[in-house]
Amino acid sequence: MFGRIDHIGVAVEDLDEAVSLYSERLGMPVQHRETVEQQGVEAVLLGVGENHVELLRPLSPETAVGRFLERNGPGMHHVAYGTDDIDSALEQARAAGLALIDDRPRAGIRGSRVAFVHPKSTGGVLTELVEAAEGH
Amino acid sequence: MFGRIDHIGVAVEDLDEAVSLYSERLGMPVQHRETVEQQGVEAVLLGVGENHVELLRPLSPETAVGRFLERNGPGMHHVAYGTDDIDSALEQARAAGLALIDDRPRAGIRGSRVAFVHPKSTGGVLTELVEAAEGH
Repeated sequence: MFGRIDHIGVAVEDLDEAVSLYSERLGMPVQHRETVEQQGVEAVLLGVGENHVELLRPLSPETAVGRFLERNGPGMHHVAYGTDDIDSALEQARAAGLALIDDRPRAGIRGSRVAFVHPKSTGGVLTELVEAAEGH
Repeated sequence: MFGRIDHIGVAVEDLDEAVSLYSERLGMPVQHRETVEQQGVEAVLLGVGENHVELLRPLSPETAVGRFLERNGPGMHHVAYGTDDIDSALEQARAAGLALIDDRPRAGIRGSRVAFVHPKSTGGVLTELVEAAEGH
């Protein structure tokens, strides 16, 4: 169903400060920066081997990540598992009785297709499925 | 400094239920089960490609994971990054000014050597460094 952990998503208040921390102090190279309006975030992907850390700054307090920050402060927001075929993975997730936030894949960062599974059916962990765009 | 995301650690209340969920519904094979007294947990490692999910049940409410569950409920507890040389990685983390919970590596699950970095210096993310035992 999944080939790897694609990334962990980390909610941050100050994106530039977090990028400096992860790139300079933790040694992870910045790979991509993008505003994903549909998810209400400005996001930066950093590489760690084949996996990534995704730093997320909410575009406003009313976004999902904005509300998360208000409630919890900065920290881990979600985990994303990589799949080569998100349509099939989503169908398997549905068949397994998982509560889907997204009934069908939508546009994610860097041309990916993504879908979220509700934490109530994954042990309290907000879980994302990701099919990377060709070449990523 | 790091070669990959080794695992995400997930705090759970009912370990068997969580193992069923992750192995049967999310399709991740169980690789290892161990009580790690020093960390106050019973832990199960499941595979997802070269990465893992580590499910953590506290041995008592007074452990770190027990207090986390009391405060937050079940969910993501930490992320662990894999390194081939934890002594060197820990030295780099110290030199970078990160606040270390462990001054030197200690015994982790499945014969690994681990050290934790305080979330105050990693953007609110409890962060573990892991050097796997030979063969893992």
